Amino acid sequence: MKTYIDQLAMKAKKAASELGVLNHEQKNAALMTIADLLDEDSAIILKANATDIQEARIHGMGEGKLDRLRLTEERIRQMAQGIREVANLPDPIGEVIESWEREDGLQLQKVRVPMGVIAMIYESRPNVTMDAAALTIKTGNAAVLRGGKEALHSNQALVAVIQKGLSQSGLPEYSVQLVERTERESVDVLIKAKGMIDLVIPRGGAGLISHVTQNAYVPVIETGVGNCHVYVDEFADEKKAIDIVLNAKVQRPSVCNAAETLLVHRDIAQKWLPSAVQALIDERVEVRACEKSVDILKNHGFEIAMPAYSGYGQVCSASDSDYATEFLDYIIAVKVVSSFEEGIKHIQKYGTRHSEAIVTEDEQRAAQFFRYVDAAAVYHNASTRFTDGFEFGFGAEIGISTQKLHARGPMGLREITSYKYLIRGDGHVRK
Amino acid sequence: MKTYIDQLAMKAKKAASELGVLNHEQKNAALMTIADLLDEDSAIILKANATDIQEARIHGMGEGKLDRLRLTEERIRQMAQGIREVANLPDPIGEVIESWEREDGLQLQKVRVPMGVIAMIYESRPNVTMDAAALTIKTGNAAVLRGGKEALHSNQALVAVIQKGLSQSGLPEYSVQLVERTERESVDVLIKAKGMIDLVIPRGGAGLISHVTQNAYVPVIETGVGNCHVYVDEFADEKKAIDIVLNAKVQRPSVCNAAETLLVHRDIAQKWLPSAVQALIDERVEVRACEKSVDILKNHGFEIAMPAYSGYGQVCSASDSDYATEFLDYIIAVKVVSSFEEGIKHIQKYGTRHSEAIVTEDEQRAAQFFRYVDAAAVYHNASTRFTDGFEFGFGAEIGISTQKLHARGPMGLREITSYKYLIRGDGHVRK
Repeated sequence: MKTYIDQLAMKAKKAASELGVLNHEQKNAALMTIADLLDEDSAIILKANATDIQEARIHGMGEGKLDRLRLTEERIRQMAQGIREVANLPDPIGEVIESWEREDGLQLQKVRVPMGVIAMIYESRPNVTMDAAALTIKTGNAAVLRGGKEALHSNQALVAVIQKGLSQSGLPEYSVQLVERTERESVDVLIKAKGMIDLVIPRGGAGLISHVTQNAYVPVIETGVGNCHVYVDEFADEKKAIDIVLNAKVQRPSVCNAAETLLVHRDIAQKWLPSAVQALIDERVEVRACEKSVDILKNHGFEIAMPAYSGYGQVCSASDSDYATEFLDYIIAVKVVSSFEEGIKHIQKYGTRHSEAIVTEDEQRAAQFFRYVDAAAVYHNASTRFTDGFEFGFGAEIGISTQKLHARGPMGLREITSYKYLIRGDGHVRK
Repeated sequence: MKTYIDQLAMKAKKAASELGVLNHEQKNAALMTIADLLDEDSAIILKANATDIQEARIHGMGEGKLDRLRLTEERIRQMAQGIREVANLPDPIGEVIESWEREDGLQLQKVRVPMGVIAMIYESRPNVTMDAAALTIKTGNAAVLRGGKEALHSNQALVAVIQKGLSQSGLPEYSVQLVERTERESVDVLIKAKGMIDLVIPRGGAGLISHVTQNAYVPVIETGVGNCHVYVDEFADEKKAIDIVLNAKVQRPSVCNAAETLLVHRDIAQKWLPSAVQALIDERVEVRACEKSVDILKNHGFEIAMPAYSGYGQVCSASDSDYATEFLDYIIAVKVVSSFEEGIKHIQKYGTRHSEAIVTEDEQRAAQFFRYVDAAAVYHNASTRFTDGFEFGFGAEIGISTQKLHARGPMGLREITSYKYLIRGDGHVRK
């Protein structure tokens, strides 16, 4: 396995050194060619995908997961369109980030450069393959893609199209490579390939991510785990609060920026919570409520289910572990807090530093929330669902970082670049 | 050990959450107090340092290392002055890096925030303790300092002064803590304290650095290993080339931005190399020369020593391993290359991506060198010795990064910060 990965990584390193110095036009032309080939070769890709789907069915994959794995004519068209959009974005490489001159005339420039070789480790969605390829080619980085076993045939067909497009455009074919050996071991070897790979981005569940951060020798950017909160302050506008909680929970519950816990200040809970919970139930959300919320809801005639028998659209009692859970489902934990400070402390304890929102009409409270909450994205009177590269206007997204080093929050093109200093003298020496 | 480190890290985390929201005045006042206390308590610090020096002597530490460990009245005054200078630097925390508004009125700000808790792992120089404390306090980060065993008493005395200054100024005392257990194990536990420590910066030899990157769960910034080259092009100005090579090698050979290998284009080697080597020998540098250089030097009457008997101020034959060695000493490897491309390839093979220089009057060559050399700092007609936070105008330096993630090259205040997005809406939800 080590020989296999090393060879892949060496080819990637060589490709990166060629790719990194290409101009915008060359990289964009290759992206356009790949987009066209994707449309042309869609039948081949669909056939490969059908094999994956069939095998996944045999192995008992559920319908939700099957849907994420499935490609269609329409999805391939969207992929191709996505690549064209990336081609049309400004190229961050070569940007002069800063420049200055010393008194002695020495001139310094800080210039954006590619990261080098980026390894992506991800699960079953084949569109990640194409996204990662487009963003790395655009930024002059070489990519080593380790997708999930379930999507192997699809990924092979996609990478074949990418490599064909690269060759046709005169770019190094190995700028994008797929790790075709999908044993767990290939991950372990890949993340130790220091000196050849410059960055690893794992995308997937908490287990994959902690395995990678604990075992990698290569620098890692952690992504995606989001235990996000909406805190409804005593000074909240009731209508905005309901809109935001509903949107944060149900607009797309399966993603990392969806809300998992609703915190409510006790001074607004009596009058606001019942209508909020009703709205959630109407959307078939299961509400796991703290003792105080249960009391309030009972007083308003809500039925409280036994936790073991509770389900979508019902209310039951919350346990402590609910506050620590990223449900990624139509489930929300609710907690009444006695003060703003208790709300902040709850977020500090259970939050994953992803996205946190306050609903309040009090500007000072909002300012304090901004100050004291340590997360990639902190919201005032807006839904946590906006934490996304496209919503932020980056035009692309390769993941959402939940660490503080290098990149935080949505990562677009700039977030997978580095910089170097170019210094021009005329025989300058240090005194 | 784990309990000991965990307690330290928990205190640091708590301190960081308080420190991170303080304003400039509060942090600067604490720095000024620490500087004053350092002057006042210098006798205590010198006494502690004398104990370290005495023990180090008993253990047979050499004079060079002893000098790095030694504190004097004057060095303490300089430390205090350094802290006052850091206090006078602009505070990067709170800086709005970018801000924009979406068409729907949602407002986004990207704001600079502290990293959180930073662990520093370093060797015998006690001034690193004070530098790290000043830079982390200034940026609202808490610091956990794991200095070398040899400097333990000195570091204890310094951290006592720092903590006294913090308390007197109303800042959390545990903003700066020393790991007083200096067994190797304390490093291993520290670098795995994920969730409590946000960043580890190892400063020291290649062994320490690779141990940390291979075993850490916490994100790491690698520092310091510098196998730097000066490439003298066929179109070089001969005088500038000699000035730059001499400065890069002998102005301070023990540091990471000093040059270790001189590459010379063959078309200039005949006439330029003998005078360059003479100048190096005059400065007592040992020159380890490739076969071609040896031929040229012999023709010019230089004596060539046997490698085993060679020493300062002499010329001998280079072996391949010399090109891979960071001498950090009055030793330089010399290689004649047949072309510009061969020079670039040599740097790609042996360089550590730290600092690389070209000497040439040909602008196109310089532009190509800037393009193809992948290093933190790339120089045209200037010495590699400028790769330094102070020389770059950062006003401070916590180390020189040789990785591409997060920070590259000299790290000042901004390089130990992160950012977060603050998003203001008015009931905004995602469509």
